[in-house]
Amino acid sequence: MSKKIRCAVLGLGRLGYWHAENLSRRVKGADLTAVADPLEGRAEQVARELGVPKWFQNPDDVFEDPDIDAVAIVTPTTTHAEMIKKAAASRKHIFVEKPITHTVEEADEVIKAIRDHQVYCQVGFMRRFDPSYVEAKRRIDAGDIGKPIYFKGVTRDGIAPPPNFIQHSGGLFLDFSIHDYDAARFLLGAEVTSVTALGSVVHKQYVAEFNDVDQALTYLTFDSGAAADIEASRNANYGYDIRAEIIGTEGAIQIGNLQHHNLKVLTKKGCTHDIVPDFPSLFMDAYLLEMISFIDCLKNDQKPLVDEYDGKIALEIAVAATKSYREKTTIQLESVHSVSN
Amino acid sequence: MSKKIRCAVLGLGRLGYWHAENLSRRVKGADLTAVADPLEGRAEQVARELGVPKWFQNPDDVFEDPDIDAVAIVTPTTTHAEMIKKAAASRKHIFVEKPITHTVEEADEVIKAIRDHQVYCQVGFMRRFDPSYVEAKRRIDAGDIGKPIYFKGVTRDGIAPPPNFIQHSGGLFLDFSIHDYDAARFLLGAEVTSVTALGSVVHKQYVAEFNDVDQALTYLTFDSGAAADIEASRNANYGYDIRAEIIGTEGAIQIGNLQHHNLKVLTKKGCTHDIVPDFPSLFMDAYLLEMISFIDCLKNDQKPLVDEYDGKIALEIAVAATKSYREKTTIQLESVHSVSN
Amino acid sequence: MSKKIRCAVLGLGRLGYWHAENLSRRVKGADLTAVADPLEGRAEQVARELGVPKWFQNPDDVFEDPDIDAVAIVTPTTTHAEMIKKAAASRKHIFVEKPITHTVEEADEVIKAIRDHQVYCQVGFMRRFDPSYVEAKRRIDAGDIGKPIYFKGVTRDGIAPPPNFIQHSGGLFLDFSIHDYDAARFLLGAEVTSVTALGSVVHKQYVAEFNDVDQALTYLTFDSGAAADIEASRNANYGYDIRAEIIGTEGAIQIGNLQHHNLKVLTKKGCTHDIVPDFPSLFMDAYLLEMISFIDCLKNDQKPLVDEYDGKIALEIAVAATKSYREKTTIQLESVHSVSN
Amino acid sequence: MSKKIRCAVLGLGRLGYWHAENLSRRVKGADLTAVADPLEGRAEQVARELGVPKWFQNPDDVFEDPDIDAVAIVTPTTTHAEMIKKAAASRKHIFVEKPITHTVEEADEVIKAIRDHQVYCQVGFMRRFDPSYVEAKRRIDAGDIGKPIYFKGVTRDGIAPPPNFIQHSGGLFLDFSIHDYDAARFLLGAEVTSVTALGSVVHKQYVAEFNDVDQALTYLTFDSGAAADIEASRNANYGYDIRAEIIGTEGAIQIGNLQHHNLKVLTKKGCTHDIVPDFPSLFMDAYLLEMISFIDCLKNDQKPLVDEYDGKIALEIAVAATKSYREKTTIQLESVHSVSN
Repeated sequence: MSKKIRCAVLGLGRLGYWHAENLSRRVKGADLTAVADPLEGRAEQVARELGVPKWFQNPDDVFEDPDIDAVAIVTPTTTHAEMIKKAAASRKHIFVEKPITHTVEEADEVIKAIRDHQVYCQVGFMRRFDPSYVEAKRRIDAGDIGKPIYFKGVTRDGIAPPPNFIQHSGGLFLDFSIHDYDAARFLLGAEVTSVTALGSVVHKQYVAEFNDVDQALTYLTFDSGAAADIEASRNANYGYDIRAEIIGTEGAIQIGNLQHHNLKVLTKKGCTHDIVPDFPSLFMDAYLLEMISFIDCLKNDQKPLVDEYDGKIALEIAVAATKSYREKTTIQLESVHSVSN
Repeated sequence: MSKKIRCAVLGLGRLGYWHAENLSRRVKGADLTAVADPLEGRAEQVARELGVPKWFQNPDDVFEDPDIDAVAIVTPTTTHAEMIKKAAASRKHIFVEKPITHTVEEADEVIKAIRDHQVYCQVGFMRRFDPSYVEAKRRIDAGDIGKPIYFKGVTRDGIAPPPNFIQHSGGLFLDFSIHDYDAARFLLGAEVTSVTALGSVVHKQYVAEFNDVDQALTYLTFDSGAAADIEASRNANYGYDIRAEIIGTEGAIQIGNLQHHNLKVLTKKGCTHDIVPDFPSLFMDAYLLEMISFIDCLKNDQKPLVDEYDGKIALEIAVAATKSYREKTTIQLESVHSVSN
Repeated sequence: MSKKIRCAVLGLGRLGYWHAENLSRRVKGADLTAVADPLEGRAEQVARELGVPKWFQNPDDVFEDPDIDAVAIVTPTTTHAEMIKKAAASRKHIFVEKPITHTVEEADEVIKAIRDHQVYCQVGFMRRFDPSYVEAKRRIDAGDIGKPIYFKGVTRDGIAPPPNFIQHSGGLFLDFSIHDYDAARFLLGAEVTSVTALGSVVHKQYVAEFNDVDQALTYLTFDSGAAADIEASRNANYGYDIRAEIIGTEGAIQIGNLQHHNLKVLTKKGCTHDIVPDFPSLFMDAYLLEMISFIDCLKNDQKPLVDEYDGKIALEIAVAATKSYREKTTIQLESVHSVSN
Repeated sequence: MSKKIRCAVLGLGRLGYWHAENLSRRVKGADLTAVADPLEGRAEQVARELGVPKWFQNPDDVFEDPDIDAVAIVTPTTTHAEMIKKAAASRKHIFVEKPITHTVEEADEVIKAIRDHQVYCQVGFMRRFDPSYVEAKRRIDAGDIGKPIYFKGVTRDGIAPPPNFIQHSGGLFLDFSIHDYDAARFLLGAEVTSVTALGSVVHKQYVAEFNDVDQALTYLTFDSGAAADIEASRNANYGYDIRAEIIGTEGAIQIGNLQHHNLKVLTKKGCTHDIVPDFPSLFMDAYLLEMISFIDCLKNDQKPLVDEYDGKIALEIAVAATKSYREKTTIQLESVHSVSN
């Protein structure tokens, strides 16, 4: 009935490809109109595979195309600010992968651009759309655990990325824990007031070269009086292990399940189930659901559920955590409240 | 690259609609070309919603259409035989919901028709495509539990269908346990030699009117020396509860998990997770995966993984179970082996 | 304050030794005064180890001893009737291992003897004292699952007993399923009206020599309208696997947990916990708790919680099951109700 | 055969009573010879109940009694140093509840006294005797998870102790986390090099009065290169929640299980199990097992498995944690290594 949202995906790496596939096949109200990737031939290859009518090597071709309503920015983080500003200037709505930008200053710039050009922006914190996080939020809001007072997050992966990935990852606090910073805000319904970050290199020595850690721990306090601890690890060689726990005054909620196949094998050696091996296995549905929500918001002319302010605040916490770790001090985050106004 | 399989769905009830939605949106190699339903306006409604070019009230229009390669038959069981024979006669490949036909005699007729017209047929035992059953089969075939010697199946639902559904359901052995009969053959890799069925009305008295039970138990023996017990129940008012267990000489495999959301709520009253409420919640992926497999087989000119013989054998076991229950005797199933030749 | 119950244990096999150890060390109101065993030197050995003042080779010495208030009979089943009758005649209270006697006729005789001499008798259905069964009963009685309508029991072991054990075991229905027959009566709060038993030799062929099975399935109906299915197996080579499930009109209860140590090991191969290896690991507490309850009843001059009638009824069901299996027919159990009067 | 160890228990509060009960009834090689408690009549009451021949109000009567081989000190922490020194001077072996003493200086004094008088001392870190911790240690030592690199501990209780308990508890780091400090050392097989502690009052405001917290988080680094995070909470109103996790280079181990009864109740509201309500429910066996081990060591003239050095080190970490929290700084623990020499 209503007009479909004409979309373009910028950046066709693994995640960009999924977004393209979801937009072309699984998101009802969307038309994937164009794809772009700087790598010679990559955009055409994806376009042919998914039946996308237009493909470009240069993202500017997307911004100049008046028949595109929204863009999904899945390019390297350092390019996010430029991409968002151009998209906003060409009056295209924006979906951008986390982190929203490389620096907090850039985040302020893109917030201004988004406001000036009156477009919508959603940041890719897909956990908020995962059915278990959605249900947790619903139960908390229903008062099932009383007032939420503590958040405990774990994000562990077992894959050792190559040194050059580590170098550009922004560090473990920014690369991993930012998801938990956002989830903690979302589930506690409160804003961070202080950040203390600790960390060590306990196994993967090569990350030390880049002043990074392979085990990170962040302690947050919130304006509601709540607190949080958030672990991130590159050392879970058994699989992909994501947990969130919210303690309330009347109970607690635990999110997280390592079991992959719905199957147990029992032998003399014990009872064994396999383990979720990687993030696509765990969050594939969440990636689809966040995109469905984004398109629904655009169709209904509504602000997306995770916007540029959420993007900036999570980034600000991650930057503070990195600083706290390096300077061995607690960082106060007073500016947070002003940003949302 | 290769031509897409042009499909039609016959019967647009709840399950027919899902198959239509999957074929139109999620099965890569398929084009949903037509839908048909005898209910005035239903086919058009679905066609418009899913963007299907043709819609019919009379299934014969589908069989006469030369631009359709395959049909999915989701009409009432009593019509299956006629539909399959017409589809075969018009050289269309067939996906048919379980049970394959209403009677074993009809099953023999459709097997002959399918053979005569050299079309492919897949029966809707979607559990075989559920990732946990696939993985169980893989583990068994890999020898992880030794030789499989016992199968234990549970199929419980909590919904009390209305009397007129019960009347036409064929009874609990046919309506529910047929899935486990097929799963037992699949996972044990063996053929049934005897069937003993027992049952009671323990709660829902109205099913007794139709000579049906609300608790059924089937005991099977197999030509490999293995045995099986299979419970079916309409009394699980807590949710939808499907389990399969295979005991081997070196271990065992358990399939089944009641947990719905990946979330636990802890309060003074205990630790609670919600329960899979109904069969769509549990098997939605399996319905998609069986259709993907069907289309893949057609594209590669290969026999589907669950064919008309599997359909007939499962039906034959279910008919024998019903007879065993009513006549209070064990039924030998010698004919089974001949049928597969 | 009050006088202790002076006890003797007859039969010092594995289970007899545990009862002796519990009575001497862990049951507050009991004094273990004597132990007896026909094996030369065994009674003395145990007496010295546990500090028991008297030991005998001949159980008659126990019956003749006026300073003994109660006996625990842990001798071979074929001797139970004689032991119980002698104990009753000498006015000693009786704890007897299951089954109460070798035959139903003997059970009637011992019931008469117990009544005539006005002693108390408890039968060793220790599951009734296991905290999970106690809690299940409490929850059912509290109405938490509505009216109980179905019981599902599983008793699996992985140990292959030697042929001469099988020969004297009474068969799998009597040796294993009798525990579930009692548990079903206990948890459903109803009496069995019919017994249908099925079975196969699926792996351990040598049991066939003794007309026994290694996989047994019993279907029971109850005077309350409820039904039950009960599996017994000697093929669980992964461990000791006991489960009970009670479906009610408003919910269900599941008893059973394979996990042994409270520990999970996660590696690339999956998440593994070890499995309860054998019945002592699972029921050691229940053996102690049943003895504590027995002594408490004696001290308070109260009838034990599982008495000689319970012993006879469970035996009667097991005998009927064995007959049903052998004669391939359903056995009606009308006599059950009269027995309890 | 060998002489029994004649024991006395000093302090008959809840825990002291359990130790007395265990020593009198369940620890094979022990004789409970005397009990002492300053509360008028308490010692006599317990002595009569447990059949203990001697009772005293003044602990000095125990130290002067030549017929006592060992004492279990379960008096207030502030008295530990005096009790241990007197026990050592009277050549009695010592079991002392954690923490070993009130201050690190006192710990040094009692270590000297123990050494000078050549007695044995065991500190009540009962988790080391809990079967799951023992099994975890065994699996780690067997190399099942490679080299251990991270420990994650959670100790949560839901009981709000009265203000005057909080006042004398030594704070949450000393009262709760000391168990995890010891467990981390035990399971990682390494010594702490730095302590950083953070905390908040997120719910139970009255603890702030005593400069205490109701949520505590400690980050430890170890001389092996490993690290640890340890949460303690008084806010788990759902039950008693103890977890330990050890990440190794080849896998991980998780200890902890909230489930109390081995029972699940399934209704329309979900699947629920009850939760371990308090520490006796979880660690009753561990309290017995630590005492069995203590007596075994004495009988075999062997050093106990958790000795006064372990006691001092755990205390030192807890004191450092409290200081770190209050001074908002990381504390280096260089002295630790020298102490064990």
